[in-house]
Amino acid sequence: MKIIVIGATGTVGRAVAAELGGRHDIIGAGRSSADQPVAIEDYASVQALFGRTGPVDGIVVAAGGLHFGPLADMTPEQFRSGLDSKLMGQVNVALAAQHHLRDGGSITLTGGIVGHHPIRHGANASTVNRALEGFVTGAAVELQRGLRINLVDPTVLTESLPVYGDYFHGFEPADSRRVALAYSRSVDGPETGKVYRVW
Amino acid sequence: MKIIVIGATGTVGRAVAAELGGRHDIIGAGRSSADQPVAIEDYASVQALFGRTGPVDGIVVAAGGLHFGPLADMTPEQFRSGLDSKLMGQVNVALAAQHHLRDGGSITLTGGIVGHHPIRHGANASTVNRALEGFVTGAAVELQRGLRINLVDPTVLTESLPVYGDYFHGFEPADSRRVALAYSRSVDGPETGKVYRVW
Repeated sequence: MKIIVIGATGTVGRAVAAELGGRHDIIGAGRSSADQPVAIEDYASVQALFGRTGPVDGIVVAAGGLHFGPLADMTPEQFRSGLDSKLMGQVNVALAAQHHLRDGGSITLTGGIVGHHPIRHGANASTVNRALEGFVTGAAVELQRGLRINLVDPTVLTESLPVYGDYFHGFEPADSRRVALAYSRSVDGPETGKVYRVW
Repeated sequence: MKIIVIGATGTVGRAVAAELGGRHDIIGAGRSSADQPVAIEDYASVQALFGRTGPVDGIVVAAGGLHFGPLADMTPEQFRSGLDSKLMGQVNVALAAQHHLRDGGSITLTGGIVGHHPIRHGANASTVNRALEGFVTGAAVELQRGLRINLVDPTVLTESLPVYGDYFHGFEPADSRRVALAYSRSVDGPETGKVYRVW
């Protein structure tokens, strides 16, 4: 199958491309991609990506930014930045993908453990990650032509501990290879409307 | 206690004001309120409300719009309208309220059953309602001075069946008096970070 991976140069995206690449044709895309540049926050950019690739069998998004900071100082503008990027960006991809995927194709989005297990400075992340669960729940019942949509909900990555570890003391990390298995279940499996927790 | 109810003329807001009014001073507010007009989508409007009321012991939000429509035709702009109103509007209230509530005061927001039980045309509603669960989860661990935040998650209102009933066949409705009890648990109880499901 032909699968687009957005965020292909990130830690998760690389692992997903490696996991899926043995049996599928992977089209790596992302903000800094030379071949397939895309900014998920911009719907026109997402549409242009599908225009260049033509019909595909699946799309994986492992991209999108959040705002981290103390709630006491948080501004609506800061909060909105996470909605615009990790939430609305992935919604943009799904809304466009439903018109460009082949019958039975899959959409796989990325959430995160902070939706259920809050951390300090993480109110925006908790909101966005849980919102994405709601989106796949709501979108799955309406997608046509056998299209499927699922969410992968990873814990903190082992590879990210040097940067984010201080927010996640006591959390059991998972390495990106293990997290990539969940994306594979979504892409290659039969399910829709599922949240694959890797924690 | 002095409690602001935003959306005080709506079906839920009226029931909440009636339930709480026997033992608390209620300040009714809302888009069409003559005394306390407020548009939750506008942070300055929310700040102005608190400026007029002075310190309060609690705020309840039973307001905010969503986009309902088929996923196949949904545009990013339509999707964003629900994020701007029911999600970002309630987040605006909470972000401002943390600076204006008396010690131990409460913030009570409103979600909905569609976050977990999808309906046709409801992808935006599923997203926003679940996002609000994430927000109270994330915000509760950071609020200072004993401030609390909870979400009421009602099923379809009995009073709303004439309008929305066709989307909710088979759902058990709840009348607004019963739903109002959940708001009372949030305002008068000791808990924080809770989702009170009325279904």
